[in-house]
Amino acid sequence: MPASPIRKLVPYAEAAKARGVEVIHLNIGQPDIKTPAQALDAVRHHNIEVLEYSRSEGSDTYRSKLAAYYGQHGIALTKEQLLVTTGGSEALSFAMGCVADAGDEIVIPEPFYANYNGFATALGITVVPVVSHIEDNFALPPIEAFEACITDRTRAILLCNPGNPTGYLYTKEEIGKLAELVRRHDLFLIADEVYREFAYDGKTHYSVLQEPDLEQHAIMVDSVSKRYSMCGARIGCIASRNAALMQAALKFAQARLSPPTFALLASEAALDTPNSYFEEVIREYSQRRDLLLEELGRVPGLKVARPQGAFYCMVALPVADADHFAQWLLESFQWEGATVMVAPAAGFYATPGLGMSQVRIAYVLSKEQLRKAVRVLAEALKKYPGNAH
Amino acid sequence: MPASPIRKLVPYAEAAKARGVEVIHLNIGQPDIKTPAQALDAVRHHNIEVLEYSRSEGSDTYRSKLAAYYGQHGIALTKEQLLVTTGGSEALSFAMGCVADAGDEIVIPEPFYANYNGFATALGITVVPVVSHIEDNFALPPIEAFEACITDRTRAILLCNPGNPTGYLYTKEEIGKLAELVRRHDLFLIADEVYREFAYDGKTHYSVLQEPDLEQHAIMVDSVSKRYSMCGARIGCIASRNAALMQAALKFAQARLSPPTFALLASEAALDTPNSYFEEVIREYSQRRDLLLEELGRVPGLKVARPQGAFYCMVALPVADADHFAQWLLESFQWEGATVMVAPAAGFYATPGLGMSQVRIAYVLSKEQLRKAVRVLAEALKKYPGNAH
Repeated sequence: MPASPIRKLVPYAEAAKARGVEVIHLNIGQPDIKTPAQALDAVRHHNIEVLEYSRSEGSDTYRSKLAAYYGQHGIALTKEQLLVTTGGSEALSFAMGCVADAGDEIVIPEPFYANYNGFATALGITVVPVVSHIEDNFALPPIEAFEACITDRTRAILLCNPGNPTGYLYTKEEIGKLAELVRRHDLFLIADEVYREFAYDGKTHYSVLQEPDLEQHAIMVDSVSKRYSMCGARIGCIASRNAALMQAALKFAQARLSPPTFALLASEAALDTPNSYFEEVIREYSQRRDLLLEELGRVPGLKVARPQGAFYCMVALPVADADHFAQWLLESFQWEGATVMVAPAAGFYATPGLGMSQVRIAYVLSKEQLRKAVRVLAEALKKYPGNAH
Repeated sequence: MPASPIRKLVPYAEAAKARGVEVIHLNIGQPDIKTPAQALDAVRHHNIEVLEYSRSEGSDTYRSKLAAYYGQHGIALTKEQLLVTTGGSEALSFAMGCVADAGDEIVIPEPFYANYNGFATALGITVVPVVSHIEDNFALPPIEAFEACITDRTRAILLCNPGNPTGYLYTKEEIGKLAELVRRHDLFLIADEVYREFAYDGKTHYSVLQEPDLEQHAIMVDSVSKRYSMCGARIGCIASRNAALMQAALKFAQARLSPPTFALLASEAALDTPNSYFEEVIREYSQRRDLLLEELGRVPGLKVARPQGAFYCMVALPVADADHFAQWLLESFQWEGATVMVAPAAGFYATPGLGMSQVRIAYVLSKEQLRKAVRVLAEALKKYPGNAH
């Protein structure tokens, strides 16, 4: 299995902290937003005496309420078209395992969430990347580029929408083009939509499950992690109108017995979170994004992709090797007692040599911290001696 | 993926209940024992505001306390030799994935826990069975039978100790023989020890981690599910002194991010469960086993394996096809308004045609219910017309 691009930096961050340096974490996708009180209270008030297995596919009541939630967001689903998973991670792993056998291929636009590689490797599936570019904010590559990758081992195209690490929000037209392609080649279209709520600039997320005539091809992966700032719950779901696919997913679900019971209590209660919670959260992230883009815009030599969703921003730095720069930031730099930890982007690319100067910044910190972090980054770029290393 | 042997019967059980028939469930491994109050209260009193990811490998404090727990049970481990998983299921899946690639083989004495097949199939690993027999309570097959199965694709031998579905408790001598074999062929020895506490007749469980000179080969899989009647928590662990193996397991763990946070609170608190809890639980199971064996002993024509651990009992019935009998019990039989649901054992065998007349009985019910269940079974065997079907 491949190592995470961020994990390698953790010991350097720990050493910096041990030296008394403040490390501002721009590298992690753990929101600082409070979890809805409804969810936390439901667990506080549990009346469990025997902590039994739950149903492998999730309870009828939770799946029914979840279906109603999707219905309110323009995605018509029945509870039979939903299967509850242990996080979005497991949903992704099940989706890959259901559509592909060892030796099969899944096409993914790069850069992509590094753990896709981990799940594929565990299942013996080959990831085939199609390059998207920072210059056009990582929009969908031309459909011909996908077409050129398709072999008789190709089983699916996998998207993250909005994207981690890109922040790109795919348009209805882009999803439509992919839909036409997967129908024509009889492939699955798997969409990781865990950041669905996080769309800015008045834009609306368009789900693969909203695309017409895609019932047999579309698979949605979702999670409560980001929506309710409940990353530690480990509850997600897989949704599809393809009954055979859902049947296959159920077998994976039965093998691991059940999702975690306490987290199910929290997730079911979270569905009663008032809209005002989301409005506030979206406003906060939107303001953070605006501030981040404004601050980055003042730093010379950067190329910044404008994110329209999720809470990540890809930045090309004027450095030859962002991995080296990230390590140097932690090992050898501080400005007024602080440094920053960024996620080097090469690990988000499958093609060797791509994204070497790029980093991913997660804007899950307060505005003051974000402002300070960009200031630290700017000062570091002035001092960095490493381009010649 | 293979279908579960029990799942097929569920609709028949539901139909029987809908007709007003009491279905006594001898088929499930969900204990009726209460979860320790310490564990449930820890979750009630949580003070979480942001439900964050936990550490992929589990917190230092939980792993340290867990190491101390194993130390008290004669298994010396450091926290670095422990990795926390989402249930024993995930620990098994990680263990298989760490030792074998797609196309590799793992040798398992049959009958075995049916989900081993599921995990192996998902990973593209081939399960190679070695037959054990009801006549000798499913003791370890001769070491020559294992030796005969080993090819250049064999990576590990996998045991369940004490066994699900067999209830067999492997002796120190048997583990020693396997240790010699895996050392000689440089294989891993994976032991699923989730029923460790449940050993009867004054016998003590002997772990693969207690076997000398097996540091590089032994992998233990464990779980809080049965120990604390916390099946719904979904917390387990993988333990090994092989540092490279633990490093590989960490990559699997990082890909799925983290185990569920609320369940970790419960599991850490459960380590403070007083010994009196276990003494009471073991006494209860031991009495149930004795009662079950006594009652089954009165039914003509049965062959019963005497379990010394876990809470399962394998029984050969005087029927040609236990699958058909189990379905008939639910569809067409009742005695004083009740019938029983058993787990047909053919699904626990990988070799086609084996175990056709066997069923697994879980003694996780009250003594009165167990007594009634055996009475129903005895009456059913008198009436069953199906041997000629």
